[in-house]
Amino acid sequence: MKTERPQVKQDRAVRTRRAILEAAAVVFEEHGYDAAKLSDIVNIAKVTKGALYFHFESKERLAQAVIDAQNDSQPQLPPQQYRAQDFVDIGMVFSHRLRHEVLIRASTRLTLEYGNRRLDRASPYEAWIDLHVAVLEEAQRRGELLPNVDPVVPSRLIVGAYAGLNTMSYTLGLDLDAQVAELYTHVMPNVVVPAVAIRLDTAPGRGARVLYGPRGAHECRHQCEGGVPPQEPAPQGVRASA
Amino acid sequence: MKTERPQVKQDRAVRTRRAILEAAAVVFEEHGYDAAKLSDIVNIAKVTKGALYFHFESKERLAQAVIDAQNDSQPQLPPQQYRAQDFVDIGMVFSHRLRHEVLIRASTRLTLEYGNRRLDRASPYEAWIDLHVAVLEEAQRRGELLPNVDPVVPSRLIVGAYAGLNTMSYTLGLDLDAQVAELYTHVMPNVVVPAVAIRLDTAPGRGARVLYGPRGAHECRHQCEGGVPPQEPAPQGVRASA
Repeated sequence: MKTERPQVKQDRAVRTRRAILEAAAVVFEEHGYDAAKLSDIVNIAKVTKGALYFHFESKERLAQAVIDAQNDSQPQLPPQQYRAQDFVDIGMVFSHRLRHEVLIRASTRLTLEYGNRRLDRASPYEAWIDLHVAVLEEAQRRGELLPNVDPVVPSRLIVGAYAGLNTMSYTLGLDLDAQVAELYTHVMPNVVVPAVAIRLDTAPGRGARVLYGPRGAHECRHQCEGGVPPQEPAPQGVRASA
Repeated sequence: MKTERPQVKQDRAVRTRRAILEAAAVVFEEHGYDAAKLSDIVNIAKVTKGALYFHFESKERLAQAVIDAQNDSQPQLPPQQYRAQDFVDIGMVFSHRLRHEVLIRASTRLTLEYGNRRLDRASPYEAWIDLHVAVLEEAQRRGELLPNVDPVVPSRLIVGAYAGLNTMSYTLGLDLDAQVAELYTHVMPNVVVPAVAIRLDTAPGRGARVLYGPRGAHECRHQCEGGVPPQEPAPQGVRASA
Protein backbone atom coordinates (compact mmCIF):
# COMPACT_ATOMS: atom_id res chain seq x y z
CA MET A 1 0.00 0.00 0.00
CA LYS A 2 1.42 3.36 -1.08
CA THR A 3 1.43 6.22 1.42
CA GLU A 4 0.63 9.60 -0.06
CA ARG A 5 2.66 12.70 0.59
CA PRO A 6 0.77 15.21 2.82
CA GLN A 7 0.78 17.80 0.00
CA VAL A 8 -0.98 15.42 -2.38
CA LYS A 9 -3.55 14.65 0.29
CA GLN A 10 -4.12 18.33 0.97
CA ASP A 11 -4.49 19.21 -2.72
CA ARG A 12 -7.04 16.49 -3.04
CA ALA A 13 -8.99 17.78 -0.02
CA VAL A 14 -9.06 21.26 -1.58
CA ARG A 15 -10.32 19.78 -4.86
CA THR A 16 -12.95 17.74 -3.04
CA ARG A 17 -14.17 20.75 -1.09
CA ARG A 18 -14.37 22.72 -4.32
CA ALA A 19 -16.22 19.90 -6.10
CA ILE A 20 -18.79 19.77 -3.29
CA LEU A 21 -19.21 23.54 -3.37
CA GLU A 22 -19.73 23.55 -7.14
CA ALA A 23 -22.20 20.65 -6.93
CA ALA A 24 -24.07 22.37 -4.09
CA ALA A 25 -24.27 25.49 -6.27
CA VAL A 26 -25.90 23.49 -9.08
CA VAL A 27 -28.51 22.04 -6.71
CA PHE A 28 -29.19 25.23 -4.72
CA GLU A 29 -29.53 27.21 -7.94
CA GLU A 30 -32.07 24.72 -9.26
CA HIS A 31 -34.12 24.09 -6.12
CA GLY A 32 -33.38 26.78 -3.53
CA TYR A 33 -32.33 26.06 0.05
CA ASP A 34 -35.34 24.21 1.44
CA ALA A 35 -35.88 21.81 -1.46
CA ALA A 36 -32.19 21.08 -2.12
CA LYS A 37 -31.21 17.46 -1.37
CA LEU A 38 -27.76 16.55 -0.03
CA SER A 39 -28.04 13.21 -1.87
CA ASP A 40 -28.21 15.11 -5.19
CA ILE A 41 -25.18 17.13 -4.18
CA VAL A 42 -23.01 14.08 -3.37
CA ASN A 43 -24.12 12.43 -6.62
CA ILE A 44 -23.11 15.41 -8.72
CA ALA A 45 -19.85 15.94 -6.82
CA LYS A 46 -19.15 12.19 -7.01
CA VAL A 47 -18.18 12.08 -3.35
CA THR A 48 -19.44 10.11 -0.37
CA LYS A 49 -21.78 11.60 2.24
CA GLY A 50 -18.91 11.17 4.68
CA ALA A 51 -16.69 13.36 2.52
CA LEU A 52 -19.41 16.01 2.41
CA TYR A 53 -19.79 16.02 6.20
CA PHE A 54 -16.00 16.09 6.61
CA HIS A 55 -15.90 19.44 4.80
CA PHE A 56 -19.30 20.88 5.79
CA GLU A 57 -20.96 20.00 9.10
CA SER A 58 -24.48 20.50 7.83
CA LYS A 59 -26.63 21.63 4.91
CA GLU A 60 -26.73 25.03 6.56
CA ARG A 61 -22.93 25.35 6.70
CA LEU A 62 -22.71 24.26 3.09
CA ALA A 63 -25.29 26.86 2.03
CA GLN A 64 -23.43 29.50 4.03
CA ALA A 65 -20.19 28.63 2.21
CA VAL A 66 -22.03 29.03 -1.11
CA ILE A 67 -23.44 32.39 0.02
CA ASP A 68 -20.01 33.60 1.14
CA ALA A 69 -18.47 32.65 -2.21
CA GLN A 70 -19.76 35.80 -3.91
CA ASN A 71 -17.48 37.98 -1.80
CA ASP A 72 -14.44 35.68 -1.89
CA SER A 73 -12.05 35.77 -4.80
CA GLN A 74 -12.75 39.21 -6.25
CA PRO A 75 -10.87 39.21 -9.55
CA GLN A 76 -7.88 41.57 -9.73
CA LEU A 77 -8.67 44.25 -12.28
CA PRO A 78 -6.30 46.57 -14.16
CA PRO A 79 -6.27 50.09 -12.63
CA GLN A 80 -8.54 52.62 -14.38
CA GLN A 81 -8.11 56.36 -14.84
CA TYR A 82 -11.12 57.10 -12.63
CA ARG A 83 -12.13 55.49 -9.36
CA ALA A 84 -15.71 56.02 -10.53
CA GLN A 85 -14.97 53.55 -13.33
CA ASP A 86 -13.72 51.06 -10.74
CA PHE A 87 -17.01 51.59 -8.92
CA VAL A 88 -18.98 50.76 -12.08
CA ASP A 89 -16.70 47.85 -12.90
CA ILE A 90 -17.51 46.04 -9.64
CA GLY A 91 -21.04 45.43 -10.85
CA MET A 92 -20.25 45.01 -14.54
CA VAL A 93 -17.68 42.31 -13.80
CA PHE A 94 -20.09 40.66 -11.40
CA SER A 95 -22.76 40.46 -14.07
CA HIS A 96 -20.19 38.79 -16.32
CA ARG A 97 -19.37 36.29 -13.56
CA LEU A 98 -23.06 35.67 -12.87
CA ARG A 99 -23.45 34.62 -16.47
CA HIS A 100 -20.52 32.20 -16.38
CA GLU A 101 -20.18 30.88 -12.82
CA VAL A 102 -22.87 28.72 -11.26
CA LEU A 103 -21.34 29.25 -7.81
CA ILE A 104 -21.92 33.00 -8.09
CA ARG A 105 -25.48 32.50 -9.35
CA ALA A 106 -26.34 30.09 -6.53
CA SER A 107 -24.77 32.44 -4.01
CA THR A 108 -26.95 35.38 -5.06
CA ARG A 109 -30.00 33.15 -5.23
CA LEU A 110 -29.54 32.02 -1.62
CA THR A 111 -28.90 35.60 -0.54
CA LEU A 112 -32.17 36.67 -2.11
CA GLU A 113 -34.28 33.89 -0.59
CA TYR A 114 -36.22 34.71 2.53
CA GLY A 115 -36.27 31.13 3.92
CA ASN A 116 -34.14 29.67 6.74
CA ARG A 117 -33.52 32.56 9.10
CA ARG A 118 -30.30 31.13 10.49
CA LEU A 119 -28.44 31.67 7.24
CA ASP A 120 -26.57 34.96 7.33
CA ARG A 121 -27.90 36.87 4.33
CA ALA A 122 -26.96 40.32 5.63
CA SER A 123 -23.17 39.91 5.37
CA PRO A 124 -23.01 39.71 1.56
CA TYR A 125 -25.00 42.96 1.27
CA GLU A 126 -22.79 44.60 3.87
CA ALA A 127 -19.59 43.37 2.22
CA TRP A 128 -20.73 44.69 -1.17
CA ILE A 129 -21.78 48.03 0.30
CA ASP A 130 -18.44 48.39 2.14
CA LEU A 131 -16.52 47.61 -1.04
CA HIS A 132 -18.51 50.21 -3.02
CA VAL A 133 -18.16 52.84 -0.28
CA ALA A 134 -14.37 52.38 -0.11
CA VAL A 135 -14.02 52.92 -3.87
CA LEU A 136 -16.37 55.92 -3.86
CA GLU A 137 -14.55 57.55 -0.93
CA GLU A 138 -11.36 57.34 -2.93
CA ALA A 139 -13.20 58.84 -5.92
CA GLN A 140 -14.34 61.65 -3.63
CA ARG A 141 -10.77 62.37 -2.46
CA ARG A 142 -9.80 62.68 -6.11
CA GLY A 143 -12.57 65.20 -6.78
CA GLU A 144 -14.60 62.92 -9.02
CA LEU A 145 -17.88 63.23 -7.09
CA LEU A 146 -20.52 65.94 -7.18
CA PRO A 147 -20.65 68.13 -4.06
CA ASN A 148 -22.50 66.73 -1.03
CA VAL A 149 -22.58 63.14 -2.23
CA ASP A 150 -22.49 60.79 0.76
CA PRO A 151 -20.68 57.70 -0.63
CA VAL A 152 -22.95 55.41 1.39
CA VAL A 153 -26.10 56.53 -0.46
CA PRO A 154 -25.21 55.58 -4.05
CA SER A 155 -23.42 52.47 -2.75
CA ARG A 156 -26.54 51.14 -1.04
CA LEU A 157 -28.64 52.15 -4.01
CA ILE A 158 -26.46 50.25 -6.48
CA VAL A 159 -26.16 47.12 -4.32
CA GLY A 160 -29.88 46.91 -3.57
CA ALA A 161 -31.00 47.79 -7.09
CA TYR A 162 -28.53 45.31 -8.53
CA ALA A 163 -30.00 42.46 -6.48
CA GLY A 164 -33.47 43.25 -7.79
CA LEU A 165 -32.38 43.56 -11.41
CA ASN A 166 -30.74 40.16 -11.00
CA THR A 167 -33.97 38.57 -9.72
CA MET A 168 -36.16 40.30 -12.29
CA SER A 169 -33.86 39.40 -15.18
CA TYR A 170 -33.90 35.78 -14.05
CA THR A 171 -37.70 35.76 -13.70
CA LEU A 172 -38.42 37.50 -17.01
CA GLY A 173 -35.55 35.99 -18.99
CA LEU A 174 -33.90 39.37 -19.62
CA ASP A 175 -30.18 39.96 -20.11
CA LEU A 176 -28.86 41.13 -16.74
CA ASP A 177 -25.85 42.85 -18.29
CA ALA A 178 -28.12 45.21 -20.25
CA GLN A 179 -30.22 46.01 -17.16
CA VAL A 180 -27.17 46.71 -15.03
CA ALA A 181 -25.71 48.93 -17.75
CA GLU A 182 -28.91 51.03 -17.63
CA LEU A 183 -28.64 51.25 -13.85
CA TYR A 184 -25.19 52.85 -14.05
CA THR A 185 -26.09 54.97 -17.05
CA HIS A 186 -29.02 56.46 -15.14
CA VAL A 187 -27.43 56.77 -11.69
CA MET A 188 -23.81 57.83 -12.29
CA PRO A 189 -24.53 61.30 -13.79
CA ASN A 190 -26.05 62.15 -10.39
CA VAL A 191 -23.03 60.90 -8.48
CA VAL A 192 -19.95 62.08 -10.41
CA VAL A 193 -19.00 65.41 -12.00
CA PRO A 194 -19.91 65.74 -15.70
CA ALA A 195 -16.27 65.58 -16.85
CA VAL A 196 -16.05 62.13 -15.30
CA ALA A 197 -19.56 61.02 -16.24
CA ILE A 198 -18.98 61.42 -19.97
CA ARG A 199 -15.79 59.37 -19.75
CA LEU A 200 -17.30 56.35 -17.98
CA ASP A 201 -17.86 53.11 -19.84
CA THR A 202 -21.24 51.84 -18.64
CA ALA A 203 -22.21 49.98 -21.83
CA PRO A 204 -23.18 46.30 -21.89
CA GLY A 205 -20.16 44.01 -22.19
CA ARG A 206 -18.07 46.24 -19.93
CA GLY A 207 -17.35 43.29 -17.63
CA ALA A 208 -15.72 41.30 -20.43
CA ARG A 209 -13.84 44.42 -21.66
CA VAL A 210 -12.29 45.16 -18.28
CA LEU A 211 -11.41 41.48 -17.74
CA TYR A 212 -10.03 40.81 -21.24
CA GLY A 213 -9.32 44.21 -22.79
CA PRO A 214 -11.05 46.09 -25.63
CA ARG A 215 -11.76 42.86 -27.51
CA GLY A 216 -13.49 41.61 -24.36
CA ALA A 217 -16.55 40.17 -26.04
CA HIS A 218 -14.46 38.19 -28.51
CA GLU A 219 -12.00 37.01 -25.86
CA CYS A 220 -14.90 36.08 -23.63
CA ARG A 221 -16.49 33.97 -26.34
CA HIS A 222 -13.13 32.31 -26.81
CA GLN A 223 -12.53 31.66 -23.11
CA CYS A 224 -16.01 31.38 -21.65
CA GLU A 225 -17.82 29.22 -24.12
CA GLY A 226 -19.05 25.89 -22.95
CA GLY A 227 -19.93 27.33 -19.58
CA VAL A 228 -16.36 27.15 -18.32
CA PRO A 229 -15.84 30.24 -16.17
CA PRO A 230 -12.79 32.33 -17.06
CA GLN A 231 -11.56 32.72 -13.46
CA GLU A 232 -11.81 29.30 -11.93
CA PRO A 233 -12.34 26.23 -14.13
CA ALA A 234 -15.09 23.99 -12.81
CA PRO A 235 -13.98 20.57 -11.65
CA GLN A 236 -14.84 18.23 -14.49
CA GLY A 237 -15.93 14.82 -13.38
CA VAL A 238 -13.60 14.93 -10.39
CA ARG A 239 -13.69 11.68 -8.51
CA ALA A 240 -12.49 12.61 -5.11
CA SER A 241 -12.89 11.80 -1.46
CA ALA A 242 -11.91 13.62 1.71
CA MET B 1 -83.91 27.17 11.59
CA LYS B 2 -83.42 30.56 9.97
CA THR B 3 -82.63 30.68 6.29
CA GLU B 4 -80.15 33.38 5.31
CA ARG B 5 -80.71 35.73 2.43
CA PRO B 6 -78.32 35.02 -0.49
CA GLN B 7 -76.70 38.48 -0.09
CA VAL B 8 -75.80 37.78 3.54
CA LYS B 9 -74.32 34.46 2.52
CA GLN B 10 -72.32 36.08 -0.27
CA ASP B 11 -70.98 38.85 1.96
CA ARG B 12 -69.85 36.27 4.43
CA ALA B 13 -68.10 34.27 1.70
CA VAL B 14 -66.25 37.42 0.62
CA ARG B 15 -65.20 38.08 4.23
CA THR B 16 -64.06 34.49 4.68
CA ARG B 17 -62.04 34.57 1.49
CA ARG B 18 -60.43 37.81 2.64
CA ALA B 19 -59.72 36.41 6.11
CA ILE B 20 -57.99 33.38 4.57
CA LEU B 21 -55.96 35.61 2.24
CA GLU B 22 -54.84 37.85 5.12
CA ALA B 23 -53.96 34.83 7.28
CA ALA B 24 -52.06 33.25 4.39
CA ALA B 25 -50.15 36.52 4.01
CA VAL B 26 -49.09 36.40 7.67
CA VAL B 27 -47.84 32.82 7.32
CA PHE B 28 -46.19 33.23 3.88
CA GLU B 29 -44.46 36.40 5.05
CA GLU B 30 -43.06 34.61 8.09
CA HIS B 31 -42.09 31.27 6.52
CA GLY B 32 -42.01 31.59 2.72
CA TYR B 33 -43.88 29.28 0.38
CA ASP B 34 -42.27 25.91 1.07
CA ALA B 35 -42.32 26.06 4.86
CA ALA B 36 -45.79 27.63 5.18
CA LYS B 37 -48.36 25.31 6.80
CA LEU B 38 -52.03 25.37 5.81
CA SER B 39 -52.90 24.35 9.38
CA ASP B 40 -51.37 27.62 10.64
CA ILE B 41 -53.36 29.55 8.06
CA VAL B 42 -56.72 28.05 9.04
CA ASN B 43 -55.91 28.64 12.73
CA ILE B 44 -55.14 32.31 12.18
CA ALA B 45 -58.11 32.82 9.85
CA LYS B 46 -60.32 30.91 12.30
CA VAL B 47 -61.86 28.86 9.50
CA THR B 48 -62.11 25.15 8.78
CA LYS B 49 -59.85 23.38 6.30
CA GLY B 50 -63.00 22.76 4.28
CA ALA B 51 -63.64 26.50 4.06
CA LEU B 52 -60.07 27.06 2.89
CA TYR B 53 -60.38 24.44 0.15
CA PHE B 54 -63.77 25.84 -0.86
CA HIS B 55 -62.09 29.16 -1.70
CA PHE B 56 -58.64 27.96 -2.79
CA GLU B 57 -58.12 24.54 -4.39
CA SER B 58 -54.56 24.15 -3.16
CA LYS B 59 -51.69 25.83 -1.35
CA GLU B 60 -50.40 26.82 -4.76
CA ARG B 61 -53.65 28.58 -5.74
CA LEU B 62 -53.69 30.35 -2.39
CA ALA B 63 -50.10 31.53 -2.84
CA GLN B 64 -50.94 32.68 -6.37
CA ALA B 65 -53.87 34.74 -5.02
CA VAL B 66 -51.49 36.36 -2.50
CA ILE B 67 -48.98 37.09 -5.27
CA ASP B 68 -51.67 38.61 -7.48
CA ALA B 69 -52.88 40.87 -4.65
CA GLN B 70 -50.06 43.38 -5.23
CA ASN B 71 -51.48 44.34 -8.61
CA ASP B 72 -55.15 44.28 -7.58
CA SER B 73 -56.72 47.27 -5.92
CA GLN B 74 -54.35 50.04 -6.94
CA PRO B 75 -55.44 53.01 -4.81
CA GLN B 76 -57.02 55.90 -6.73
CA LEU B 77 -54.70 58.89 -6.43
CA PRO B 78 -55.47 62.58 -6.96
CA PRO B 79 -54.23 63.79 -10.40
CA GLN B 80 -50.84 65.54 -10.35
CA GLN B 81 -49.51 68.35 -12.52
CA TYR B 82 -46.92 66.07 -14.11
CA ARG B 83 -47.30 62.49 -15.32
CA ALA B 84 -43.70 62.03 -14.17
CA GLN B 85 -44.93 62.64 -10.62
CA ASP B 86 -47.57 59.95 -11.12
CA PHE B 87 -44.75 57.66 -12.26
CA VAL B 88 -42.82 58.34 -9.04
CA ASP B 89 -45.95 58.05 -6.93
CA ILE B 90 -46.60 54.46 -8.03
CA GLY B 91 -43.53 53.34 -6.11
CA MET B 92 -43.77 55.80 -3.24
CA VAL B 93 -47.35 54.77 -2.49
CA PHE B 94 -46.36 51.12 -2.78
CA SER B 95 -43.60 51.58 -0.20
CA HIS B 96 -46.22 53.11 2.11
CA ARG B 97 -48.50 50.13 1.55
CA LEU B 98 -45.64 47.68 2.08
CA ARG B 99 -45.13 49.20 5.50
CA HIS B 100 -48.78 48.90 6.48
CA GLU B 101 -50.27 45.90 4.64
CA VAL B 102 -49.11 42.39 5.35
CA LEU B 103 -50.83 41.13 2.19
CA ILE B 104 -48.64 43.41 0.06
CA ARG B 105 -45.50 42.37 1.95
CA ALA B 106 -46.28 38.66 1.57
CA SER B 107 -47.09 39.17 -2.09
CA THR B 108 -43.70 40.74 -2.84
CA ARG B 109 -41.96 38.12 -0.74
CA LEU B 110 -43.48 35.28 -2.75
CA THR B 111 -42.67 37.09 -5.99
CA LEU B 112 -39.03 37.36 -4.96
CA GLU B 113 -38.65 33.74 -3.91
CA TYR B 114 -37.11 31.37 -6.40
CA GLY B 115 -38.87 28.23 -5.09
CA ASN B 116 -41.85 26.38 -6.60
CA ARG B 117 -41.56 26.91 -10.33
CA ARG B 118 -45.27 26.51 -10.99
CA LEU B 119 -46.11 29.80 -9.27
CA ASP B 120 -46.35 32.59 -11.81
CA ARG B 121 -43.83 35.16 -10.61
CA ALA B 122 -43.38 36.88 -13.95
CA SER B 123 -46.85 38.41 -14.16
CA PRO B 124 -46.42 40.84 -11.24
CA TYR B 125 -43.21 42.19 -12.78
CA GLU B 126 -44.91 42.48 -16.17
CA ALA B 127 -47.98 44.17 -14.71
CA TRP B 128 -45.83 46.72 -12.86
CA ILE B 129 -43.69 47.38 -15.93
CA ASP B 130 -46.80 47.86 -18.12
CA LEU B 131 -48.29 50.28 -15.59
CA HIS B 132 -45.05 52.31 -15.47
CA VAL B 133 -44.70 52.32 -19.27
CA ALA B 134 -48.27 53.58 -19.74
CA VAL B 135 -47.69 56.52 -17.38
CA LEU B 136 -44.33 57.35 -18.92
CA GLU B 137 -45.72 57.25 -22.47
CA GLU B 138 -48.30 59.82 -21.40
CA ALA B 139 -45.50 61.90 -19.85
CA GLN B 140 -43.67 61.66 -23.17
CA ARG B 141 -46.71 62.88 -25.12
CA ARG B 142 -46.80 65.88 -22.80
CA GLY B 143 -43.13 66.69 -23.46
CA GLU B 144 -41.95 65.83 -19.95
CA LEU B 145 -39.24 63.34 -21.02
CA LEU B 146 -35.73 63.96 -22.26
CA PRO B 147 -35.20 63.23 -25.97
CA ASN B 148 -34.70 59.60 -26.98
CA VAL B 149 -35.98 58.10 -23.74
CA ASP B 150 -37.59 54.73 -24.43
CA PRO B 151 -40.29 54.50 -21.72
CA VAL B 152 -39.63 50.76 -21.34
CA VAL B 153 -36.04 51.31 -20.15
CA PRO B 154 -36.62 53.43 -17.02
CA SER B 155 -39.78 51.42 -16.28
CA ARG B 156 -37.88 48.13 -16.15
CA LEU B 157 -35.08 49.77 -14.24
CA ILE B 158 -37.40 51.15 -11.55
CA VAL B 159 -39.41 47.93 -11.17
CA GLY B 160 -36.34 45.70 -10.94
CA ALA B 161 -34.36 48.04 -8.70
CA TYR B 162 -37.36 48.50 -6.45
CA ALA B 163 -37.66 44.75 -5.88
CA GLY B 164 -34.02 44.58 -4.81
CA LEU B 165 -34.22 47.60 -2.52
CA ASN B 166 -37.22 45.93 -0.90
CA THR B 167 -35.28 42.71 -0.25
CA MET B 168 -32.14 44.51 0.90
CA SER B 169 -34.07 46.82 3.24
CA TYR B 170 -35.80 43.80 4.76
CA THR B 171 -32.51 41.92 5.17
CA LEU B 172 -30.53 44.85 6.62
CA GLY B 173 -33.39 46.44 8.58
CA LEU B 174 -33.28 49.66 6.54
CA ASP B 175 -36.22 51.96 5.88
CA LEU B 176 -37.48 51.07 2.39
CA ASP B 177 -39.11 54.47 1.89
CA ALA B 178 -35.73 56.23 2.20
CA GLN B 179 -34.07 53.80 -0.22
CA VAL B 180 -36.83 54.18 -2.79
CA ALA B 181 -36.68 57.97 -2.48
CA GLU B 182 -32.97 57.81 -3.38
CA LEU B 183 -33.77 55.61 -6.37
CA TYR B 184 -36.10 58.23 -7.86
CA THR B 185 -33.83 61.12 -6.86
CA HIS B 186 -30.94 59.53 -8.73
CA VAL B 187 -32.81 58.18 -11.76
CA MET B 188 -35.45 60.80 -12.63
CA PRO B 189 -33.04 63.61 -13.65
CA ASN B 190 -31.91 61.28 -16.46
CA VAL B 191 -35.46 60.57 -17.58
CA VAL B 192 -37.35 63.89 -17.46
CA VAL B 193 -36.45 67.41 -18.62
CA PRO B 194 -34.86 69.62 -15.93
CA ALA B 195 -37.94 71.85 -15.62
CA VAL B 196 -39.93 68.79 -14.56
CA ALA B 197 -37.13 67.18 -12.53
CA ILE B 198 -36.82 70.12 -10.14
CA ARG B 199 -40.57 70.08 -9.51
CA LEU B 200 -40.84 66.39 -8.61
CA ASP B 201 -41.44 65.34 -5.02
CA THR B 202 -39.20 62.30 -4.50
CA ALA B 203 -38.61 62.80 -0.77
CA PRO B 204 -39.33 60.10 1.83
CA GLY B 205 -42.94 60.19 3.04
CA ARG B 206 -44.21 61.01 -0.44
CA GLY B 207 -46.55 58.00 -0.35
CA ALA B 208 -48.37 59.30 2.73
CA ARG B 209 -48.46 62.84 1.29
CA VAL B 210 -50.09 61.78 -1.95
CA LEU B 211 -52.57 59.53 -0.11
CA TYR B 212 -53.46 62.00 2.68
CA GLY B 213 -52.32 65.42 1.47
CA PRO B 214 -49.48 67.67 2.65
CA ARG B 215 -49.91 66.59 6.26
CA GLY B 216 -49.52 63.02 5.05
CA ALA B 217 -47.11 61.86 7.72
CA HIS B 218 -49.36 63.15 10.50
CA GLU B 219 -52.51 61.77 8.91
CA CYS B 220 -50.76 58.47 8.35
CA ARG B 221 -49.77 58.23 12.01
CA HIS B 222 -53.36 58.98 12.87
CA GLN B 223 -54.85 56.45 10.47
CA CYS B 224 -52.18 53.82 10.12
CA GLU B 225 -51.02 53.29 13.69
CA GLY B 226 -51.62 49.92 15.23
CA GLY B 227 -50.79 48.22 11.96
CA VAL B 228 -54.26 48.78 10.54
CA PRO B 229 -53.77 49.52 6.85
CA PRO B 230 -55.36 52.73 5.62
CA GLN B 231 -56.96 51.25 2.51
CA GLU B 232 -58.49 47.99 3.60
CA PRO B 233 -58.96 47.26 7.28
CA ALA B 234 -57.73 43.79 8.22
CA PRO B 235 -60.44 41.41 9.40
CA GLN B 236 -60.19 41.40 13.18
CA GLY B 237 -60.96 38.07 14.72
CA VAL B 238 -63.51 37.25 12.04
CA ARG B 239 -65.17 33.94 12.75
CA ALA B 240 -66.41 32.82 9.42
CA SER B 241 -67.08 29.79 7.33
CA ALA B 242 -67.61 29.30 3.63
